[in-house]
Amino acid sequence: MAAALAEAERAAAAGEVPVGAVLVDAATGEILARGHNRVEALRDPTAHAELLLISEVARRLGAKRLTGADLYVTLEPCPMCAAAISFARLRRLYYGAYDPKSGGVDHGPRIFEQATCHHSPEVFGGIGERAAGDLLRAFFQARR
Amino acid sequence: MAAALAEAERAAAAGEVPVGAVLVDAATGEILARGHNRVEALRDPTAHAELLLISEVARRLGAKRLTGADLYVTLEPCPMCAAAISFARLRRLYYGAYDPKSGGVDHGPRIFEQATCHHSPEVFGGIGERAAGDLLRAFFQARR
Repeated sequence: MAAALAEAERAAAAGEVPVGAVLVDAATGEILARGHNRVEALRDPTAHAELLLISEVARRLGAKRLTGADLYVTLEPCPMCAAAISFARLRRLYYGAYDPKSGGVDHGPRIFEQATCHHSPEVFGGIGERAAGDLLRAFFQARR
Repeated sequence: MAAALAEAERAAAAGEVPVGAVLVDAATGEILARGHNRVEALRDPTAHAELLLISEVARRLGAKRLTGADLYVTLEPCPMCAAAISFARLRRLYYGAYDPKSGGVDHGPRIFEQATCHHSPEVFGGIGERAAGDLLRAFFQARR
């Protein structure tokens, strides 16, 4: 989660909403990819950290299912990213700050609890919540 | 929708789940992009037709919001693509076959009806449902 937080800080420095993520090989602990939100840089509303990492690693490994991978992300994933996590068959999701306004895991559509969701990872929310939340709050306060 | 169906037929010919889509300039009717599901070709579980089109057009136009665009897709979007449609602020969604098993618009999480969804397009489901559904059924029957 420290590596994900470092990515979130890089996002903030680049003027992006500060959300960072790392995708990890669950067996070895090796970081498969790290990245952050790039909506502004790419001018792409789908360029969330989680989606970019899943797409990048799946294409690189030629594996549309990443069953041996865990995702660490500093903010509760939105419904788009939660569904992508399900499609990729990730083993575990660790996330930082809760997102009551736009989250899709423990708020809103609660994607993994739907009967139409065909794979749910193990979910651990609130990991490193304070640091991730502080970064988001500071970012949005500075923009007001 | 005929153009989206033609894309779905190209998907089937390429061994992909046959879903096709086109993104259209609502003011002029011009097709901004057309494409189909490419999960197998890219080995990427996020490579659904809708997500690929939104990402491609937003990056090309340098516009993270595509408020003047309508999407035609042959199958009810999944939750991932429905959320992407919301983020992109598309004006209208026209879709073909209903998807009770994995859909996210009129089934499952019903993304656009969530309080955490900050933009909902106008939705027209069941447009050209028969042809889109026949293509999907033929594809899955042939694979059994």
